[in-house]
Amino acid sequence: MGPRVPHPEEAASPGAALLPFSWAGNGAPGAGIGIGFYGNSETSDGVSQLSSALLHANHTLSTIDDVVLETVERLGEAVKTELTTLEEVLSVRMELVAATRGARRQAEAAAQYLQGLAFWQGVSLSPVQVAEDVTFVEEYRWLAYVLLLLLVLLVCLFTLLGLAKQSKWLVVVMTAMSLLVLVLSWGSVGLEAATAVGLSDFCSNPDTYVLNLTQEETGLSSDILSYYFLCNQAVSNPFQQRLTLSQRALASIHSQLQGLEREAIPQFSAAQKPLLSLEETLNVTERSFHQLVALLHCRSLHKDYGSALRGLCEDALEGLLFLMLFSLLSAGALATTLCSLPRAWALFPPSDDYDDTDDDDPFNPQESKRFVQWQSSI
Amino acid sequence: MGPRVPHPEEAASPGAALLPFSWAGNGAPGAGIGIGFYGNSETSDGVSQLSSALLHANHTLSTIDDVVLETVERLGEAVKTELTTLEEVLSVRMELVAATRGARRQAEAAAQYLQGLAFWQGVSLSPVQVAEDVTFVEEYRWLAYVLLLLLVLLVCLFTLLGLAKQSKWLVVVMTAMSLLVLVLSWGSVGLEAATAVGLSDFCSNPDTYVLNLTQEETGLSSDILSYYFLCNQAVSNPFQQRLTLSQRALASIHSQLQGLEREAIPQFSAAQKPLLSLEETLNVTERSFHQLVALLHCRSLHKDYGSALRGLCEDALEGLLFLMLFSLLSAGALATTLCSLPRAWALFPPSDDYDDTDDDDPFNPQESKRFVQWQSSI
Repeated sequence: MGPRVPHPEEAASPGAALLPFSWAGNGAPGAGIGIGFYGNSETSDGVSQLSSALLHANHTLSTIDDVVLETVERLGEAVKTELTTLEEVLSVRMELVAATRGARRQAEAAAQYLQGLAFWQGVSLSPVQVAEDVTFVEEYRWLAYVLLLLLVLLVCLFTLLGLAKQSKWLVVVMTAMSLLVLVLSWGSVGLEAATAVGLSDFCSNPDTYVLNLTQEETGLSSDILSYYFLCNQAVSNPFQQRLTLSQRALASIHSQLQGLEREAIPQFSAAQKPLLSLEETLNVTERSFHQLVALLHCRSLHKDYGSALRGLCEDALEGLLFLMLFSLLSAGALATTLCSLPRAWALFPPSDDYDDTDDDDPFNPQESKRFVQWQSSI
Repeated sequence: MGPRVPHPEEAASPGAALLPFSWAGNGAPGAGIGIGFYGNSETSDGVSQLSSALLHANHTLSTIDDVVLETVERLGEAVKTELTTLEEVLSVRMELVAATRGARRQAEAAAQYLQGLAFWQGVSLSPVQVAEDVTFVEEYRWLAYVLLLLLVLLVCLFTLLGLAKQSKWLVVVMTAMSLLVLVLSWGSVGLEAATAVGLSDFCSNPDTYVLNLTQEETGLSSDILSYYFLCNQAVSNPFQQRLTLSQRALASIHSQLQGLEREAIPQFSAAQKPLLSLEETLNVTERSFHQLVALLHCRSLHKDYGSALRGLCEDALEGLLFLMLFSLLSAGALATTLCSLPRAWALFPPSDDYDDTDDDDPFNPQESKRFVQWQSSI
């Protein structure tokens, strides 16, 4: 037997020692990294659902303001131009002037009632700003997790490579990296646990908290806020009264215009144009009014609220728990790796036959020993 | 050198031959299985978004029908009881009877206008049925993929185990299983490609197709369907006319009731009770009317349509592409495994020192050879 032929049991032992590392180093973090990517994507989905619900709610709120503003302006314009022209044209018939004045009063009343419906006007809290802040934080959180996941993946792969190639420097570097990633993993476990506890505390009964917070931030009456946040049969529409009053005012303008059309047009042909224009304005106003009724109803805004809550309390929380599982798995696997790597290193044969080509350092003590052996054999 | 000490290069070769299999057998399908689980969950999310949007749309449609039915019944009841009582009480004053008859006519007209708003009544297509069908198919699809993923995972793990333990029967069984899973993978690639092509074809321009299909299934007018499916400024509300007319009828009932209250109550105290009850009915009807305006507006149903499309064309399609990637990866890895397993088997040493305990079959030809050798050495 030559001195450089190793005993078969000895040659087999690094291969056998590789197996548990291969399982621990590729199995647990492999599953962990998959879980981590899934959790990261779920959290991101949940947060983007939250911010898109906020944007949709903002769109509804700003559309309410726009429609109210537009309708009030349109009614004011009609009062200023067509109704004034009509009054001048019909000035000789007192009862027609009275009907015109009645229509003007009703139009002014309707404009005043509608004005009060733009409840979000002048509120400093902007859902767009909240959505932007949330998206900003989420982008960095997402990126940080992707980097952490890639780091764990790289550490696992290079540790396996180091074990397979039995390269000592790679194993040393990866031991140091594992220590770093272990610290990061434990840190992220702590952060995730704190966030998950806070989030599930919030999610167990969000309505009261969100209602109080929004009331503080916006200064809106609790009637309006509970109508939108609860949106059930028990809470009546706080705009019902105003809506009914403006609806009656619009219907009364309509009947007065119809009366004027019947009475005035046969006698005063100049009254036809402003009357038709007023009817058109009334039709457009009624369409806007119906849109406003639809926008003010709690269904749409409450659905956004529900969707934001679902995003936060279902998807984001679930993703967070998966991220926590990933962090725990990777921390466990890295701790195992850290404990076993020095022992695996001790099992590396002092000189190996299938060494990697990187190790051709002439000042390597093994190489110089071999050189001395080769010289003496000549 | 003893005959049973293998040459070091020979002893090392199975270890070296293991590496590429370990990478191919654990790396590619490992990533593939992660991608597959992710894709399966994304597809499932998308389909559940579709079915929840369908359920929400169904809720809106059935609420419209319910509110219309309830309001029409309430108005009919008021006409039958309170207005008839009022007519009898006021029968001595003809002008008050005329006002009451006017209110009755308006109430009947309002009921008739509102009746026409229940557009989904008598339509045979039920979104709930569609949602249930979709959920049923999706449940089996999800389960089939989870089973396929687990099968691939098990085949990979047992192949690795067979290679590590150098157990021939395990490698043979896993070769047969790999062949089976390879066929399943290629089959699923074909199914996924066909579904993805069909789905992306549908998703490139869904509106026209869905509109035509719904029109065929429901027989509703294209006015109503394009109002809900397009929901932009260009399409006017097909219920606008009816809504405005019923609103005017309700306002006119209100003004007639107010007139009656002023005129009749001082003289006929018996008129007070039915009049107050009518006012209450009118208030409730106006609330229901506002709810109906909100429900009939295209916002809510169009949002459900958009959410169903997003579920199908974003999440489900994305998930499907990920599933296709998984199937391709696993098919590739299994094909590689199938090509290399027989060669790896040939490299197994004819008798191995760290054999597993399962292989203690006395009728094993190697065992009997060893037995003969042992006998001859005695």
